[in-house]
Amino acid sequence: MSDSSPGIVDLLGVLAYAELAAFLRLAEDAAKLAPTLNDRAALGDVAATEYGHFRVLRDRLASLGVDPEEAMAPFVEAIDAWHTQTRPKDWYEALIKAYVGVGIAGDFYREAARNTTASISALVDEVLADESRAEFAVERVRAALDADPRLRGRLALWARRMVGEALSQGQRLAAARPRLAALLVGEEGEDLAEIGRMFARLTEAHGKRMEALGLTPGP
Amino acid sequence: MSDSSPGIVDLLGVLAYAELAAFLRLAEDAAKLAPTLNDRAALGDVAATEYGHFRVLRDRLASLGVDPEEAMAPFVEAIDAWHTQTRPKDWYEALIKAYVGVGIAGDFYREAARNTTASISALVDEVLADESRAEFAVERVRAALDADPRLRGRLALWARRMVGEALSQGQRLAAARPRLAALLVGEEGEDLAEIGRMFARLTEAHGKRMEALGLTPGP
Repeated sequence: MSDSSPGIVDLLGVLAYAELAAFLRLAEDAAKLAPTLNDRAALGDVAATEYGHFRVLRDRLASLGVDPEEAMAPFVEAIDAWHTQTRPKDWYEALIKAYVGVGIAGDFYREAARNTTASISALVDEVLADESRAEFAVERVRAALDADPRLRGRLALWARRMVGEALSQGQRLAAARPRLAALLVGEEGEDLAEIGRMFARLTEAHGKRMEALGLTPGP
Repeated sequence: MSDSSPGIVDLLGVLAYAELAAFLRLAEDAAKLAPTLNDRAALGDVAATEYGHFRVLRDRLASLGVDPEEAMAPFVEAIDAWHTQTRPKDWYEALIKAYVGVGIAGDFYREAARNTTASISALVDEVLADESRAEFAVERVRAALDADPRLRGRLALWARRMVGEALSQGQRLAAARPRLAALLVGEEGEDLAEIGRMFARLTEAHGKRMEALGLTPGP
Protein backbone atom coordinates (compact mmCIF):
# COMPACT_ATOMS: atom_id res chain seq x y z
CA MET A 1 0.00 0.00 0.00
CA SER A 2 1.38 3.45 -0.91
CA ASP A 3 0.50 6.83 0.63
CA SER A 4 -1.31 7.86 -2.55
CA SER A 5 -3.57 4.77 -2.73
CA PRO A 6 -7.25 5.73 -2.93
CA GLY A 7 -8.07 4.51 0.58
CA ILE A 8 -5.35 6.67 2.12
CA VAL A 9 -6.38 9.72 0.11
CA ASP A 10 -9.95 9.18 1.37
CA LEU A 11 -8.68 8.85 4.91
CA LEU A 12 -6.59 12.04 4.74
CA GLY A 13 -9.53 13.83 3.06
CA VAL A 14 -12.11 12.88 5.66
CA LEU A 15 -9.77 13.71 8.54
CA ALA A 16 -8.77 17.04 6.92
CA TYR A 17 -12.36 18.16 6.50
CA ALA A 18 -13.26 16.92 9.98
CA GLU A 19 -10.46 19.06 11.43
CA LEU A 20 -11.37 22.12 9.35
CA ALA A 21 -15.04 21.84 10.33
CA ALA A 22 -14.18 21.22 13.99
CA PHE A 23 -11.95 24.29 14.02
CA LEU A 24 -14.67 26.53 12.58
CA ARG A 25 -17.51 25.16 14.76
CA LEU A 26 -15.48 25.21 17.97
CA ALA A 27 -14.51 28.81 17.29
CA GLU A 28 -18.17 29.66 16.77
CA ASP A 29 -19.15 27.89 20.00
CA ALA A 30 -16.35 29.70 21.87
CA ALA A 31 -17.56 33.07 20.56
CA LYS A 32 -21.23 32.44 21.31
CA LEU A 33 -21.37 30.26 24.41
CA ALA A 34 -18.29 30.76 26.62
CA PRO A 35 -19.32 32.46 29.88
CA THR A 36 -15.92 34.12 30.55
CA LEU A 37 -12.98 35.35 28.48
CA ASN A 38 -10.73 32.65 29.93
CA ASP A 39 -13.26 29.99 28.91
CA ARG A 40 -13.47 31.53 25.46
CA ALA A 41 -9.69 31.44 25.14
CA ALA A 42 -9.53 27.83 26.38
CA LEU A 43 -12.04 26.57 23.80
CA GLY A 44 -10.35 28.83 21.23
CA ASP A 45 -7.15 26.97 22.03
CA VAL A 46 -8.79 23.64 21.19
CA ALA A 47 -10.13 25.17 17.96
CA ALA A 48 -6.74 26.55 16.89
CA THR A 49 -5.12 23.17 17.60
CA GLU A 50 -7.65 21.50 15.26
CA TYR A 51 -6.68 24.04 12.62
CA GLY A 52 -3.03 23.02 13.04
CA HIS A 53 -4.06 19.41 12.36
CA PHE A 54 -5.98 20.48 9.28
CA ARG A 55 -2.84 22.19 7.99
CA VAL A 56 -0.73 19.06 8.52
CA LEU A 57 -3.27 16.91 6.64
CA ARG A 58 -3.76 19.42 3.82
CA ASP A 59 0.00 19.73 3.31
CA ARG A 60 0.34 15.96 3.26
CA LEU A 61 -2.37 15.69 0.57
CA ALA A 62 -0.69 18.42 -1.48
CA SER A 63 2.70 16.71 -1.18
CA LEU A 64 1.08 13.52 -2.57
CA GLY A 65 -0.02 15.53 -5.61
CA VAL A 66 -3.68 15.49 -4.54
CA ASP A 67 -5.89 18.61 -4.56
CA PRO A 68 -7.02 18.92 -0.90
CA GLU A 69 -10.38 20.36 -1.95
CA GLU A 70 -11.09 17.32 -4.15
CA ALA A 71 -10.02 14.94 -1.42
CA MET A 72 -12.27 16.61 1.16
CA ALA A 73 -15.34 17.14 -1.04
CA PRO A 74 -16.92 13.66 -0.68
CA PHE A 75 -17.11 14.10 3.11
CA VAL A 76 -18.46 17.62 3.45
CA GLU A 77 -22.14 16.69 3.49
CA ALA A 78 -21.89 14.02 6.20
CA ILE A 79 -19.67 16.08 8.49
CA ASP A 80 -21.71 19.27 8.06
CA ALA A 81 -24.88 17.27 8.74
CA TRP A 82 -23.38 15.99 11.98
CA HIS A 83 -22.55 19.52 13.11
CA THR A 84 -26.01 20.78 12.21
CA GLN A 85 -27.62 17.97 14.21
CA THR A 86 -25.32 18.54 17.20
CA ARG A 87 -25.36 22.31 17.60
CA PRO A 88 -24.76 22.96 21.33
CA LYS A 89 -27.45 24.98 23.10
CA ASP A 90 -25.25 26.05 26.04
CA TRP A 91 -21.67 26.11 27.28
CA TYR A 92 -21.79 22.63 28.84
CA GLU A 93 -23.06 21.05 25.67
CA ALA A 94 -20.26 22.86 23.80
CA LEU A 95 -17.64 21.54 26.26
CA ILE A 96 -18.91 17.97 25.97
CA LYS A 97 -19.01 18.23 22.20
CA ALA A 98 -15.40 19.46 22.13
CA TYR A 99 -14.17 16.72 24.45
CA VAL A 100 -16.17 13.87 22.92
CA GLY A 101 -15.57 15.10 19.36
CA VAL A 102 -11.81 15.47 19.74
CA GLY A 103 -11.83 12.07 21.46
CA ILE A 104 -13.70 10.32 18.64
CA ALA A 105 -11.39 11.94 16.10
CA GLY A 106 -8.43 10.60 18.09
CA ASP A 107 -9.94 7.10 18.03
CA PHE A 108 -10.18 7.32 14.26
CA TYR A 109 -6.53 8.33 13.98
CA ARG A 110 -5.58 5.36 16.10
CA GLU A 111 -7.65 2.93 14.03
CA ALA A 112 -6.14 4.35 10.85
CA ALA A 113 -2.62 3.98 12.21
CA ARG A 114 -3.17 0.22 12.68
CA ASN A 115 -3.83 -0.43 9.00
CA THR A 116 -1.80 2.04 6.96
CA THR A 117 1.82 2.98 6.29
CA ALA A 118 4.71 4.09 8.49
CA SER A 119 4.47 7.70 7.30
CA ILE A 120 0.75 7.85 8.14
CA SER A 121 1.55 6.43 11.57
CA ALA A 122 4.07 9.23 12.08
CA LEU A 123 1.43 11.80 11.12
CA VAL A 124 -0.99 10.22 13.59
CA ASP A 125 1.58 10.50 16.37
CA GLU A 126 2.00 14.18 15.60
CA VAL A 127 -1.74 14.79 15.81
CA LEU A 128 -2.35 12.74 18.94
CA ALA A 129 0.36 14.60 20.84
CA ASP A 130 -2.01 17.60 20.99
CA GLU A 131 -5.06 15.71 22.15
CA SER A 132 -4.85 16.82 25.77
CA ARG A 133 -5.98 20.36 24.97
CA ALA A 134 -9.62 19.39 25.32
CA GLU A 135 -9.01 18.02 28.84
CA PHE A 136 -9.99 21.32 30.44
CA ALA A 137 -13.59 20.44 29.52
CA VAL A 138 -13.57 17.54 32.00
CA GLU A 139 -12.83 19.76 34.96
CA ARG A 140 -15.46 22.35 33.94
CA VAL A 141 -18.21 19.77 33.38
CA ARG A 142 -17.47 17.93 36.65
CA ALA A 143 -17.61 21.20 38.59
CA ALA A 144 -20.96 22.02 36.97
CA LEU A 145 -22.36 18.57 37.86
CA ASP A 146 -21.21 18.98 41.46
CA ALA A 147 -22.97 22.34 41.65
CA ASP A 148 -26.17 21.10 39.99
CA PRO A 149 -26.56 17.30 39.83
CA ARG A 150 -29.82 17.66 37.87
CA LEU A 151 -27.71 18.61 34.81
CA ARG A 152 -26.48 15.04 34.55
CA GLY A 153 -29.50 13.50 32.82
CA ARG A 154 -29.68 16.14 30.11
CA LEU A 155 -25.93 16.15 29.42
CA ALA A 156 -25.67 12.34 29.38
CA LEU A 157 -28.49 12.28 26.82
CA TRP A 158 -26.70 14.95 24.79
CA ALA A 159 -23.45 12.92 24.71
CA ARG A 160 -25.37 9.80 23.65
CA ARG A 161 -27.16 11.65 20.89
CA MET A 162 -23.90 13.10 19.52
CA VAL A 163 -22.32 9.65 19.31
CA GLY A 164 -25.48 8.18 17.78
CA GLU A 165 -25.46 10.82 15.06
CA ALA A 166 -21.73 10.19 14.49
CA LEU A 167 -22.30 6.45 14.03
CA SER A 168 -25.18 7.11 11.67
CA GLN A 169 -23.12 9.50 9.52
CA GLY A 170 -20.19 7.08 9.71
CA GLN A 171 -22.33 4.26 8.34
CA ARG A 172 -23.51 6.46 5.46
CA LEU A 173 -19.89 7.25 4.65
CA ALA A 174 -18.75 3.65 4.90
CA ALA A 175 -21.47 2.62 2.45
CA ALA A 176 -20.56 5.39 0.01
CA ARG A 177 -16.75 4.91 0.28
CA PRO A 178 -16.01 1.17 0.50
CA ARG A 179 -12.27 1.72 0.01
CA LEU A 180 -12.19 3.87 3.14
CA ALA A 181 -14.19 1.31 5.10
CA ALA A 182 -11.83 -1.41 3.86
CA LEU A 183 -8.87 0.56 5.15
CA LEU A 184 -10.34 0.82 8.63
CA VAL A 185 -11.66 -2.73 9.02
CA GLY A 186 -9.67 -4.86 6.58
CA GLU A 187 -10.38 -6.03 3.02
CA GLU A 188 -13.88 -4.93 1.98
CA GLY A 189 -15.05 -5.25 5.54
CA GLU A 190 -15.19 -9.05 5.21
CA ASP A 191 -13.37 -9.63 8.43
CA LEU A 192 -16.40 -9.52 10.74
CA ALA A 193 -14.34 -10.31 13.81
CA GLU A 194 -12.13 -7.30 13.11
CA ILE A 195 -15.19 -5.04 12.72
CA GLY A 196 -16.42 -6.33 16.05
CA ARG A 197 -13.10 -5.60 17.72
CA MET A 198 -13.00 -2.08 16.26
CA PHE A 199 -16.47 -1.31 17.61
CA ALA A 200 -15.44 -2.70 20.97
CA ARG A 201 -12.41 -0.38 21.04
CA LEU A 202 -14.50 2.66 20.03
CA THR A 203 -17.20 1.90 22.59
CA GLU A 204 -14.68 1.35 25.34
CA ALA A 205 -12.87 4.63 24.61
CA HIS A 206 -16.17 6.53 24.55
CA GLY A 207 -17.21 4.93 27.84
CA LYS A 208 -13.97 6.09 29.45
CA ARG A 209 -14.64 9.65 28.32
CA MET A 210 -18.18 9.55 29.73
CA GLU A 211 -16.75 8.32 33.01
CA ALA A 212 -14.14 11.09 33.05
CA LEU A 213 -16.93 13.64 32.56
CA GLY A 214 -19.00 12.12 35.35
CA LEU A 215 -21.77 11.23 32.91
CA THR A 216 -22.08 7.49 33.60
CA PRO A 217 -25.27 6.29 35.34
CA GLY A 218 -25.07 6.81 39.10
CA PRO A 219 -25.09 3.96 41.65
CA MET B 1 8.28 53.30 31.13
CA SER B 2 8.21 49.60 32.09
CA ASP B 3 6.34 46.75 30.41
CA SER B 4 3.93 46.53 33.32
CA SER B 5 2.97 50.23 33.33
CA PRO B 6 -0.81 50.70 33.09
CA GLY B 7 -0.69 52.04 29.52
CA ILE B 8 1.20 49.01 28.26
CA VAL B 9 -1.12 46.61 30.09
CA ASP B 10 -4.07 48.39 28.42
CA LEU B 11 -2.36 48.15 25.05
CA LEU B 12 -1.64 44.43 25.41
CA GLY B 13 -5.17 43.89 26.71
CA VAL B 14 -6.93 45.66 23.83
CA LEU B 15 -4.73 43.95 21.23
CA ALA B 16 -5.23 40.53 22.88
CA TYR B 17 -9.00 40.83 22.87
CA ALA B 18 -8.97 42.24 19.33
CA GLU B 19 -7.01 39.17 18.16
CA LEU B 20 -9.22 36.72 20.06
CA ALA B 21 -12.39 38.30 18.67
CA ALA B 22 -10.93 38.48 15.14
CA PHE B 23 -10.01 34.81 15.32
CA LEU B 24 -13.51 33.77 16.37
CA ARG B 25 -15.36 36.04 13.91
CA LEU B 26 -13.15 35.16 10.95
CA ALA B 27 -13.66 31.48 11.68
CA GLU B 28 -17.41 32.05 11.73
CA ASP B 29 -17.29 33.98 8.45
CA ALA B 30 -15.17 31.23 6.88
CA ALA B 31 -17.67 28.57 7.97
CA LYS B 32 -20.74 30.48 6.80
CA LEU B 33 -19.70 32.50 3.77
CA ALA B 34 -16.80 30.84 1.91
CA PRO B 35 -18.00 29.57 -1.50
CA THR B 36 -15.40 26.76 -1.80
CA LEU B 37 -13.38 24.59 0.56
CA ASN B 38 -10.13 26.24 -0.54
CA ASP B 39 -11.61 29.66 0.24
CA ARG B 40 -12.78 28.37 3.61
CA ALA B 41 -9.30 27.08 4.35
CA ALA B 42 -7.66 30.35 3.23
CA LEU B 43 -9.82 32.49 5.54
CA GLY B 44 -9.38 29.83 8.22
CA ASP B 45 -5.65 30.36 7.84
CA VAL B 46 -6.04 34.09 8.56
CA ALA B 47 -8.21 33.23 11.59
CA ALA B 48 -5.72 30.73 13.00
CA THR B 49 -2.90 33.25 12.58
CA GLU B 50 -4.87 35.77 14.64
CA TYR B 51 -5.22 33.13 17.31
CA GLY B 52 -1.44 32.72 17.33
CA HIS B 53 -1.11 36.47 17.97
CA PHE B 54 -3.65 36.24 20.78
CA ARG B 55 -1.56 33.52 22.39
CA VAL B 56 1.61 35.64 22.19
CA LEU B 57 -0.15 38.62 23.80
CA ARG B 58 -1.86 36.53 26.49
CA ASP B 59 1.43 34.87 27.43
CA ARG B 60 3.13 38.26 27.60
CA LEU B 61 0.43 39.57 29.96
CA ALA B 62 0.73 36.47 32.12
CA SER B 63 4.53 36.81 32.26
CA LEU B 64 4.05 40.40 33.52
CA GLY B 65 1.94 39.00 36.38
CA VAL B 66 -1.29 40.36 34.90
CA ASP B 67 -4.49 38.27 34.58
CA PRO B 68 -5.21 38.33 30.81
CA GLU B 69 -8.97 38.23 31.44
CA GLU B 70 -8.76 41.37 33.59
CA ALA B 71 -6.57 43.14 31.05
CA MET B 72 -8.98 42.37 28.20
CA ALA B 73 -12.25 43.04 30.03
CA PRO B 74 -12.38 46.86 29.55
CA PHE B 75 -12.29 46.43 25.76
CA VAL B 76 -14.78 43.65 25.19
CA GLU B 77 -17.82 45.86 24.74
CA ALA B 78 -16.30 48.19 22.13
CA ILE B 79 -14.75 45.41 20.07
CA ASP B 80 -17.86 43.21 20.20
CA ALA B 81 -19.96 46.23 19.19
CA TRP B 82 -17.73 46.80 16.18
CA HIS B 83 -18.14 43.19 15.08
CA THR B 84 -21.90 43.31 15.54
CA GLN B 85 -22.12 46.46 13.42
CA THR B 86 -19.86 45.02 10.72
CA ARG B 87 -21.24 41.52 10.23
CA PRO B 88 -20.48 40.60 6.58
CA LYS B 89 -23.51 39.68 4.46
CA ASP B 90 -21.54 37.80 1.78
CA TRP B 91 -18.13 36.40 0.95
CA TYR B 92 -16.76 39.64 -0.53
CA GLU B 93 -17.71 41.66 2.53
CA ALA B 94 -16.01 38.98 4.64
CA LEU B 95 -12.83 39.18 2.54
CA ILE B 96 -12.71 42.97 2.76
CA LYS B 97 -13.33 42.85 6.49
CA ALA B 98 -10.47 40.38 6.94
CA TYR B 99 -8.05 42.43 4.84
CA VAL B 100 -9.02 45.84 6.20
CA GLY B 101 -9.35 44.58 9.77
CA VAL B 102 -5.97 42.82 9.82
CA GLY B 103 -4.50 45.96 8.20
CA ILE B 104 -5.92 48.34 10.81
CA ALA B 105 -4.69 46.02 13.57
CA GLY B 106 -1.23 46.14 11.96
CA ASP B 107 -1.34 49.94 11.93
CA PHE B 108 -2.06 49.89 15.64
CA TYR B 109 0.87 47.61 16.31
CA ARG B 110 3.11 49.97 14.38
CA GLU B 111 1.86 53.04 16.26
CA ALA B 112 2.36 51.22 19.55
CA ALA B 113 5.89 50.23 18.61
CA ARG B 114 6.82 53.92 18.17
CA ASN B 115 6.03 54.86 21.74
CA THR B 116 6.72 51.87 23.97
CA THR B 117 9.60 49.68 25.06
CA ALA B 118 12.14 47.53 23.22
CA SER B 119 10.44 44.30 24.28
CA ILE B 120 7.05 45.50 22.99
CA SER B 121 8.74 46.43 19.70
CA ALA B 122 10.08 42.89 19.44
CA LEU B 123 6.59 41.52 20.03
CA VAL B 124 5.23 43.83 17.33
CA ASP B 125 7.82 42.56 14.86
CA GLU B 126 6.76 39.00 15.59
CA VAL B 127 3.10 39.81 14.92
CA LEU B 128 3.67 41.88 11.79
CA ALA B 129 5.72 39.10 10.18
CA ASP B 130 2.43 37.20 9.66
CA GLU B 131 0.45 40.05 8.20
CA SER B 132 0.67 38.86 4.59
CA ARG B 133 -1.77 36.01 5.19
CA ALA B 134 -4.76 38.24 4.45
CA GLU B 135 -3.28 39.22 1.05
CA PHE B 136 -5.22 36.46 -0.73
CA ALA B 137 -8.32 38.63 -0.21
CA VAL B 138 -6.96 41.26 -2.60
CA GLU B 139 -6.74 38.87 -5.51
CA ARG B 140 -10.22 37.45 -4.85
CA VAL B 141 -11.89 40.87 -4.56
CA ARG B 142 -10.16 42.23 -7.68
CA ALA B 143 -11.26 39.21 -9.70
CA ALA B 144 -14.85 39.72 -8.50
CA LEU B 145 -14.76 43.43 -9.47
CA ASP B 146 -13.43 42.53 -12.92
CA ALA B 147 -16.27 40.06 -13.39
CA ASP B 148 -18.95 42.44 -12.08
CA PRO B 149 -17.93 46.14 -11.88
CA ARG B 150 -21.30 47.03 -10.30
CA LEU B 151 -20.04 45.44 -7.06
CA ARG B 152 -17.61 48.31 -6.57
CA GLY B 153 -20.04 50.88 -5.17
CA ARG B 154 -21.50 48.56 -2.56
CA LEU B 155 -18.11 47.19 -1.45
CA ALA B 156 -16.48 50.62 -1.29
CA LEU B 157 -19.35 51.79 0.93
CA TRP B 158 -18.91 48.69 3.09
CA ALA B 159 -15.19 49.39 3.59
CA ARG B 160 -15.92 53.01 4.49
CA ARG B 161 -18.59 52.01 6.98
CA MET B 162 -16.25 49.51 8.67
CA VAL B 163 -13.56 52.12 9.15
CA GLY B 164 -16.10 54.69 10.33
CA GLU B 165 -17.37 52.28 12.98
CA ALA B 166 -13.77 51.51 14.00
CA LEU B 167 -12.97 55.21 14.48
CA SER B 168 -16.15 55.70 16.47
CA GLN B 169 -15.38 52.77 18.81
CA GLY B 170 -11.76 53.95 19.00
CA GLN B 171 -12.86 57.38 20.18
CA ARG B 172 -15.10 55.83 22.84
CA LEU B 173 -12.14 53.77 24.05
CA ALA B 174 -9.73 56.70 24.01
CA ALA B 175 -12.14 58.72 26.15
CA ALA B 176 -12.60 55.86 28.61
CA ARG B 177 -8.90 54.88 28.80
CA PRO B 178 -6.80 58.08 28.74
CA ARG B 179 -3.61 56.21 29.65
CA LEU B 180 -3.97 54.09 26.51
CA ALA B 181 -4.63 57.17 24.38
CA ALA B 182 -1.59 58.86 25.94
CA LEU B 183 0.56 55.91 24.96
CA LEU B 184 -0.48 56.12 21.33
CA VAL B 185 -0.38 59.89 20.87
CA GLY B 186 1.98 61.22 23.53
CA GLU B 187 1.40 62.59 27.05
CA GLU B 188 -2.36 62.88 27.70
CA GLY B 189 -2.94 63.53 24.03
CA GLU B 190 -1.72 67.11 24.43
CA ASP B 191 0.53 66.93 21.43
CA LEU B 192 -2.01 67.91 18.78
CA ALA B 193 0.53 67.82 15.97
CA GLU B 194 1.37 64.23 16.84
CA ILE B 195 -2.32 63.27 16.84
CA GLY B 196 -2.61 64.84 13.40
CA ARG B 197 0.40 62.90 12.13
CA MET B 198 -0.97 59.65 13.51
CA PHE B 199 -4.31 60.17 11.77
CA ALA B 200 -2.46 61.01 8.57
CA ARG B 201 -0.52 57.74 8.79
CA LEU B 202 -3.66 55.70 9.51
CA THR B 203 -5.59 57.35 6.67
CA GLU B 204 -2.75 56.86 4.24
CA ALA B 205 -2.38 53.18 5.10
CA HIS B 206 -6.12 52.64 4.73
CA GLY B 207 -6.12 54.43 1.37
CA LYS B 208 -3.39 52.11 0.12
CA ARG B 209 -5.43 49.09 1.08
CA MET B 210 -8.50 50.45 -0.72
CA GLU B 211 -6.35 50.98 -3.78
CA ALA B 212 -4.95 47.45 -3.58
CA LEU B 213 -8.53 46.13 -3.47
CA GLY B 214 -9.55 48.24 -6.46
CA LEU B 215 -12.08 50.14 -4.33
CA THR B 216 -10.92 53.72 -4.97
CA PRO B 217 -13.24 55.95 -7.05
CA GLY B 218 -12.84 55.26 -10.77
CA PRO B 219 -11.51 57.83 -13.30
